[in-house]
Amino acid sequence: MHTVHAHLRGWMERAGMSVSVDHVGNLRGLYPSARSSSKRLFIGSHLDTVPRAGAFDGILGVVLGVALIERLEGRRLPFGIEVVGFSEEEGVRFGVPFIGSRALIGDVDNQLLTMISEAVTAFGLDPKRVSEAQAGDNALGYLEFHIEQGPVLENLNLPLGIVETISGQSRFDVLFEGHANHAGTTPMNLRRDALAGAAEWINTVECKTRATAGAVATVGRLSVFPGATNVIPSSASASLDIRHANDDVRRDLVKRLLQCAEKIASARCLTVSWKQHLDQAAVAMDPRFVQMLERAVASTGCPVHRMSSGAGHDAMIVARRLPAAMLFLRSPGGISHHPDESVLAEDVAAALDVGMAFLRELERRHA
Amino acid sequence: MHTVHAHLRGWMERAGMSVSVDHVGNLRGLYPSARSSSKRLFIGSHLDTVPRAGAFDGILGVVLGVALIERLEGRRLPFGIEVVGFSEEEGVRFGVPFIGSRALIGDVDNQLLTMISEAVTAFGLDPKRVSEAQAGDNALGYLEFHIEQGPVLENLNLPLGIVETISGQSRFDVLFEGHANHAGTTPMNLRRDALAGAAEWINTVECKTRATAGAVATVGRLSVFPGATNVIPSSASASLDIRHANDDVRRDLVKRLLQCAEKIASARCLTVSWKQHLDQAAVAMDPRFVQMLERAVASTGCPVHRMSSGAGHDAMIVARRLPAAMLFLRSPGGISHHPDESVLAEDVAAALDVGMAFLRELERRHA
Repeated sequence: MHTVHAHLRGWMERAGMSVSVDHVGNLRGLYPSARSSSKRLFIGSHLDTVPRAGAFDGILGVVLGVALIERLEGRRLPFGIEVVGFSEEEGVRFGVPFIGSRALIGDVDNQLLTMISEAVTAFGLDPKRVSEAQAGDNALGYLEFHIEQGPVLENLNLPLGIVETISGQSRFDVLFEGHANHAGTTPMNLRRDALAGAAEWINTVECKTRATAGAVATVGRLSVFPGATNVIPSSASASLDIRHANDDVRRDLVKRLLQCAEKIASARCLTVSWKQHLDQAAVAMDPRFVQMLERAVASTGCPVHRMSSGAGHDAMIVARRLPAAMLFLRSPGGISHHPDESVLAEDVAAALDVGMAFLRELERRHA
Repeated sequence: MHTVHAHLRGWMERAGMSVSVDHVGNLRGLYPSARSSSKRLFIGSHLDTVPRAGAFDGILGVVLGVALIERLEGRRLPFGIEVVGFSEEEGVRFGVPFIGSRALIGDVDNQLLTMISEAVTAFGLDPKRVSEAQAGDNALGYLEFHIEQGPVLENLNLPLGIVETISGQSRFDVLFEGHANHAGTTPMNLRRDALAGAAEWINTVECKTRATAGAVATVGRLSVFPGATNVIPSSASASLDIRHANDDVRRDLVKRLLQCAEKIASARCLTVSWKQHLDQAAVAMDPRFVQMLERAVASTGCPVHRMSSGAGHDAMIVARRLPAAMLFLRSPGGISHHPDESVLAEDVAAALDVGMAFLRELERRHA
């Protein structure tokens, strides 16, 4: 991360920015306003990604911020621009995501601070000064460029998408329990096969979610016990991840899927129980910023497409305090968190044009 | 096992048997014939069971053999009876089942001999003399009492069942492969979810097997990769265990289930592949012995019920060389390989009566 910071610092300084690293490890490059005490627009994304990942997740949004400043060629705007490269968005190191953006909105509590304290110190920073990372009252808003990390734009043959909502999310562990028995000696009609019940439910999850526009539901994990070829499974524990841009739709779907689990279990003389791990509300992007992004996209001649983000992003955190907006760039093959992750050069050029148009409108508003 | 041998040896000797341990570790008690050089009936089952098991699997059949000899009260028959407590039926120690009964029919090859050699020596026996365990040409046949280890007899409210066939068995690993993707960003219609495909197939396996009289099929193991809550599974590997008393029916069912896997995979843009691990033919018990057992059961006033065994037993091995028959005793709750495994005292008494009737008919035949 020190090496990444050094690279970006060089680019930022050459573009006329003054650079610092705040005490949660965010790299921050300030391109000053034409006025002495004025508003400040944040443009950013994260610098970390997952292990064995690609080259564009997160960091593309930071580099695009720097590129926009380069495009200004030294011309000052009526507001400052601070490009932020957030630390620890993925949650890989501490199991807690969005630490850098949480610090920007002043949301690092003592528990989190204690958790990261040693790492902050080891990085050469001061955990006591993490709170200084907080954005001031002069913050105008937040703009994030990010690869889509999904196949939607590519499927629609579109380079860019305007995020209007980051989907809410529910997570559960759902446990089916039956009775282990000998695979050879127990007739089909006398079985209480937990895996057969879980399998029926997994198909129901898929079917009911397909029938719910905009919803996604995933069983990504399934553990079967005792897990022997010749033993009828006594239990099957499934994860369930459900997302939708509309919280009511999501919660209604969750309710229906859990009712199905109960019905399936009961018909098979199984029991089913669940534990909820997450009920995260959808986060709307700022309507005015979204409209500005829309106009900016339209001004470049690119088709306007609003969409929701099924994944969480720093913008979701920053939106709690500042007007926030996100622009998605098409992900070839929908691939992300993988070495094959990529982005098309022409889409990056289009995103830069949109960014410039966005800045021009903001400039007119603050003229 | 030495302690078990010592106990049984005491009971055997008190019943008038001469006792030895052959060099594969089978305990053998011979109750001599009234004639000097005559036929010999084997009665036996295994003395080992699985870890954390119950008290009746296998050993009940040995104890019943000894109890039958006790009932003779010293009266000699026109044939000898050798009660055998087989070693290593379960395959727990070497991963190879039926070692004791294989030795009785002279089926211990050099590979198996090498595998068990050290353990045989450690037990105080001589691996070079394992072949001496083989039954001689005077062998008349083999009778095995065993708990059913399944719920069929209890469900029919019957104490005893006459095994006419030991089911054949196929085992496969079936691998569904799709494409891992982000659970939040990949719409339902653009997924290639390996687990969803496997789940659909597991339900089809259940459904088609239910529709095939006498068949059982089990998916006991299912491994899902990468196995993260928020990642669409890229692969799901399932075990498949299929059994039927009729080999043609079994192989036809196998064929249909694998065709279904291909159809499901193709409709979901998944691939499916499989590897067969076992194709074990059904083993018929000796028709004459089965009829004798039937008459013996009928003579005690107990309802006659023929059935197939879904599990393998020593009788399946011995049947390759000798006329063999098995009598099942009802398993309360269908429970076996579990501390709750049990047997009803009145069923044991009924089995003893049947054993005595069987010996009486054999006596008449050899008078």
